[in-house]
Amino acid sequence: MTDTAAPMAPHAFDVAIALAPQGDGVWQGHTSPAYANMIGPFGGATAAQALNAVLQHPQRLGEPVAFTVNFAAALADGPFFVHARPARTNRSTQHWTIEIRQGGEVMLTATVFTAVRRATWSNSSESAMPQAPQPTDLPAPDPRGRVEWIKRYDMRFVEGGFPAAWDGGDHPESRTRLWVRDEPARPLDFASLTAMSDIFFPRIWLRRATLVPIGTVSMTVYFHAGSEQLAASGTGYLHGQARAQNFFNCYFDQTAQLWNEKGDLLATTQQIVYYKE
Amino acid sequence: MTDTAAPMAPHAFDVAIALAPQGDGVWQGHTSPAYANMIGPFGGATAAQALNAVLQHPQRLGEPVAFTVNFAAALADGPFFVHARPARTNRSTQHWTIEIRQGGEVMLTATVFTAVRRATWSNSSESAMPQAPQPTDLPAPDPRGRVEWIKRYDMRFVEGGFPAAWDGGDHPESRTRLWVRDEPARPLDFASLTAMSDIFFPRIWLRRATLVPIGTVSMTVYFHAGSEQLAASGTGYLHGQARAQNFFNCYFDQTAQLWNEKGDLLATTQQIVYYKE
Repeated sequence: MTDTAAPMAPHAFDVAIALAPQGDGVWQGHTSPAYANMIGPFGGATAAQALNAVLQHPQRLGEPVAFTVNFAAALADGPFFVHARPARTNRSTQHWTIEIRQGGEVMLTATVFTAVRRATWSNSSESAMPQAPQPTDLPAPDPRGRVEWIKRYDMRFVEGGFPAAWDGGDHPESRTRLWVRDEPARPLDFASLTAMSDIFFPRIWLRRATLVPIGTVSMTVYFHAGSEQLAASGTGYLHGQARAQNFFNCYFDQTAQLWNEKGDLLATTQQIVYYKE
Repeated sequence: MTDTAAPMAPHAFDVAIALAPQGDGVWQGHTSPAYANMIGPFGGATAAQALNAVLQHPQRLGEPVAFTVNFAAALADGPFFVHARPARTNRSTQHWTIEIRQGGEVMLTATVFTAVRRATWSNSSESAMPQAPQPTDLPAPDPRGRVEWIKRYDMRFVEGGFPAAWDGGDHPESRTRLWVRDEPARPLDFASLTAMSDIFFPRIWLRRATLVPIGTVSMTVYFHAGSEQLAASGTGYLHGQARAQNFFNCYFDQTAQLWNEKGDLLATTQQIVYYKE
């Protein structure tokens, strides 16, 4: 039974990415305690805040297709400013540059490409969703003692979960497969898909079974869906797969794919991550 | 026999990426007829020019680790200006923003992350170079009738070359494997590795066996090597592998890896490409 008369509290994610317009392509945001990480906020939430400035911009043309975000420094708890500028507007495409500043310093740089898409031949047969048990047949997450932002996601690991023992071993395989959705559930959109692109714990923890200090430096997301396709995914789980390609002298990369429950590949993403060892 | 007394003409690639400093983080470059594409220049050469402004910048700290370039419009033949700015400098890392402008308009935006690397545990076992015949055992390219920039590369296809017939078929597999080096040979560096990250012809041509109009919108390169490792690759071939993940309503992505002859994974890259069909 649902009490439809009760006023709905806004979702924590919507509170987290809310921006107050300051005029002239500038928005004020605020770090969210609900998405706090060990140091600074969850990068996925910060990336979503940066993208949200473009999503809200009155001059925006089309929808996000490509998004690259560079994390220059950890945001301090508190307010910050997002600056979004259309660097180039073509007939049906637009290139954006973004900065997040805090205390006068650049904390993040980003670029976004938006476009008005037309329906064409489309095909994702080379990236079919892997077979997996239903999310509800997998154990629910145990959020005890974890950092705060982890509790904002319902993650159910199919393979490649956290190592059983932090024994410093050299494991040959960095692949993780999981189901994920907002907790509580929230209809999918570009902002939440961006945040979920950063959901995968660092591959080096899996390969080395050691909690070495890490930090994402740059993340790129390619969206293979429009807002209609995202809306059709509703509040269902996404199936995510991530793996590393190379670890070299303090930086490794990881690539990932995110499908909806129907098996549509909604986003492909990669990031490069600092690690200290 | 080599006539060591003869003055060496500069390599076409060095001519192409040459920049004349204008002061204050601004450089003048010029499109290169040697790297001309059907419309505008080869994107790889333009990307290398953008990166070169950071490589030459007196305030640069460390070496490139991540590079994202967004192609906002095709450069007209002639001069242009590269603007490079260190948005944030940390103790051993730096975040750069770049624009290429021509006739007062933004033609390209880019971000670069540079870092001073330390030697750490490194591993690329999850991305071993595929088995392939030696490049010299494969047919040399036939550059007749092709666009100009193709002639600047010695490409030898192992699999996934141009379709035997442009018959508009729906081929299930977009993977290409090839050997590539500059023609004539040139010692590898960050600029040439960047250009070669864009060497792969668009995956949609392979999947559809149709020369549909295309244009790269955004490309990201992660460097898994320092200048020492690149120098050690010398003038050898690189082994490249590319495949598409998804084609959706005018945009598809392709991911690629580049190894040197020894099998070191030097760069991983992805791009998103406009297609009209």
